[in-house]
Amino acid sequence: MDDQAGQRRVVIIGGGFAGLFTARALRRAPVQVTLIDRAAHHLFQPLLYQCSTGILSEGKITAPLRELLRKHRNVECVLAEVTGIDPERRQVHARRPGGERMEFGYDYLVVAAGVEQSYFGHDEFARYAPGMKSVEDALVIRRRVFGAFEMAESATDPAERTRWLTFALVGAGPTGVELAGQIREVATKTLRSEYRHIAPEDARVLLFDGGDAPLASFGPVLSGKAAAALTKLGVEQHMHSIVTQVDGTGLLVRDKDGKVTRYEAGTVLWAAGVAAPAVATAIVKATGAKCDRGGRIMVGKDLTVPGYPEIYVPGDLMCLDGLPGVAEVAMQGGLYVGGHIRHAAEGHPSDKPFRYRDLGSAAYISRGSAVVSVGKLHFSGFIGWWVWLFVHIGFLTGFRNRIGAILSWWFAFTRDLRRERTYTVREVGIVRDVYTSPPPSPANDG
Amino acid sequence: MDDQAGQRRVVIIGGGFAGLFTARALRRAPVQVTLIDRAAHHLFQPLLYQCSTGILSEGKITAPLRELLRKHRNVECVLAEVTGIDPERRQVHARRPGGERMEFGYDYLVVAAGVEQSYFGHDEFARYAPGMKSVEDALVIRRRVFGAFEMAESATDPAERTRWLTFALVGAGPTGVELAGQIREVATKTLRSEYRHIAPEDARVLLFDGGDAPLASFGPVLSGKAAAALTKLGVEQHMHSIVTQVDGTGLLVRDKDGKVTRYEAGTVLWAAGVAAPAVATAIVKATGAKCDRGGRIMVGKDLTVPGYPEIYVPGDLMCLDGLPGVAEVAMQGGLYVGGHIRHAAEGHPSDKPFRYRDLGSAAYISRGSAVVSVGKLHFSGFIGWWVWLFVHIGFLTGFRNRIGAILSWWFAFTRDLRRERTYTVREVGIVRDVYTSPPPSPANDG
Repeated sequence: MDDQAGQRRVVIIGGGFAGLFTARALRRAPVQVTLIDRAAHHLFQPLLYQCSTGILSEGKITAPLRELLRKHRNVECVLAEVTGIDPERRQVHARRPGGERMEFGYDYLVVAAGVEQSYFGHDEFARYAPGMKSVEDALVIRRRVFGAFEMAESATDPAERTRWLTFALVGAGPTGVELAGQIREVATKTLRSEYRHIAPEDARVLLFDGGDAPLASFGPVLSGKAAAALTKLGVEQHMHSIVTQVDGTGLLVRDKDGKVTRYEAGTVLWAAGVAAPAVATAIVKATGAKCDRGGRIMVGKDLTVPGYPEIYVPGDLMCLDGLPGVAEVAMQGGLYVGGHIRHAAEGHPSDKPFRYRDLGSAAYISRGSAVVSVGKLHFSGFIGWWVWLFVHIGFLTGFRNRIGAILSWWFAFTRDLRRERTYTVREVGIVRDVYTSPPPSPANDG
Repeated sequence: MDDQAGQRRVVIIGGGFAGLFTARALRRAPVQVTLIDRAAHHLFQPLLYQCSTGILSEGKITAPLRELLRKHRNVECVLAEVTGIDPERRQVHARRPGGERMEFGYDYLVVAAGVEQSYFGHDEFARYAPGMKSVEDALVIRRRVFGAFEMAESATDPAERTRWLTFALVGAGPTGVELAGQIREVATKTLRSEYRHIAPEDARVLLFDGGDAPLASFGPVLSGKAAAALTKLGVEQHMHSIVTQVDGTGLLVRDKDGKVTRYEAGTVLWAAGVAAPAVATAIVKATGAKCDRGGRIMVGKDLTVPGYPEIYVPGDLMCLDGLPGVAEVAMQGGLYVGGHIRHAAEGHPSDKPFRYRDLGSAAYISRGSAVVSVGKLHFSGFIGWWVWLFVHIGFLTGFRNRIGAILSWWFAFTRDLRRERTYTVREVGIVRDVYTSPPPSPANDG
């Protein structure tokens, strides 16, 4: 792309909801946009758990960033890993695949890098209990879940078999609840009649959380309905429970009375907390910005870092008014930031503050059951599920992915088919080896 | 599954077309069947190149073996790697994921293990020039092909950029021809408008083969039409050409006059020859069976190994009457073997020899162009393409995969969409590192 003389340069770090919506809002602005992401695709994260449990392929919950932005002639996508930021010289440092350095100067910087999984200071848990933030994570979890049933089938020791049929989920927010429900559905529906030495429906799914109830953020009414639906599905809920240790064959959990119990589990999945990525830490260090306990950066009403009016932080990495780290906040934040930059670049800066319009939240429990909260309206059970379906079809990126997802859901819901589950001896062996070999250094290989 | 007293035990090695069709033909036979595969899925190999170029997801060209055989109550699937065979004690040795040994006794053994890629004694080429036999291979190739355009985009050296935009294919059989056509389509259609510093349609695709013409096995008429269609598509064909060296940045090729030329190419893909897997070599050694140059085992008219009437070899690994290693031969061989075993187990052995009914062959060149040969009938161009479409829809495994493939084809053909192409900096970096780091030992990491 030829440089347009005099045009301002916008660098966006991250192609998630916040970064993509910023780029889209800049379509007709007199700026040159560079969107840097370490993945080539935009991910529709709210459906990632369906990729990790075999319903949807990677291609249905992602869309190539280059394809989404190909008609935006002022946008250039760069596949690179951001390694540092120099706010004084207004430069972003990155590395292309293979390692060579790249540099990007900017007039406006949009830090939409999202968040990573937090193990609350116990990064050594990561190799035993993977989190689920990226497509790569989802594929790891898919192999672990389906591989656990394989290991149970070929186990000769009854204790080993029981262990492989026990799944522990840490964190009862939407991701933990959705994964718990899906694993029970895999066990009771998808795998029915597939095994000869085990009964997959015997699989135990344990859900641990430090709070009072699953989906606490949905309020007591929906939270209670979710808890009842999970119980009916066979998910064993352990609330007021803090995980203090995870190893190759299980975990230690402390309950509210301080009693510590050990659970044997072949599969432990982590959906408990978020932490800022290295790039956010670098920004905090370089700008002196403040951040919350999770490392999220505190911004002003215009989503900029105090003292740096050219650095915006929308999305999950933004800390403002207690807004939650959900897709809707990121989309609206991206649109706001794009508009704000466009106004400034066009010479008539806006002083309108960011205002979030709450469109509600939704979580899928199992086939035919979901909880949805829209303002003062609450939906649960079968009606909630239909609302969930329409909302997710509407928000999925692109017509092709929508129609493909409807088709996959049709076969999953009516015929129990989960066809996206290829794995080999080697891949299941790697899963298994995590539990038997000594940890690598550094401990976090996630 | 409870052992049925007195029932014969059948062990099938491999869940490809030959193994799966053997198991299916044994559905109502009074035998206990154990199907061992190192993958959990049956693969529809004729469409693997569409997985490696982003049109179809893994789930559309595979189906879980357990799901396909769940109603076959006399069949047990085992996810394991076969490590050896003892024909005297009639035992198969294997390892489950993670490494523990397993043993399976048999009364009948069906060796349907298929073939691997052959580098004609140059296994050190494998790390630079991956072959395409499994889903894992296809995903490696997908990252290499799409990653090469990324590397070209971010290259600053013009020579490096040109190298990344050059793709070399070794072998002009169906796989090489189909990959060549797909890469040109990716470059000219899918990636159109996606890049800012390169013109993807500049990508050169070089096709090398030692023979006279591409798709020589289809006969001179169709072969000529295929060559013309490839030329029109922009594929540069180098026939009578032997690849003598492959390294990190290109390959050496000797033409029929003995002249050796070097071609710089960032991506080299191998589709040139087949070799027997270790399990076949073990059988040859243990039984004294004869094999051809490619390691395929010579069998009698009943597809058994001479001197071992209880060991059958159907499929790609079978050497009989010059029959080609194609899906149709494997399906018919599997059905024959299953029937033969059933008759024997029921106490009235059959002496009917295997007879192959040639249903023709087909190769896809590009959108709207294919060559199909059915007996004396030949189809090419647009008509050939429609025949190809109906044949492949008809043979795909299961209604769900058929309707999903039709949907993906619709979007690929009408809107140039290839949505199954997720990759990250790390994954493209691995591709890149293959070209810069010293080879591992053993040399073949493919």
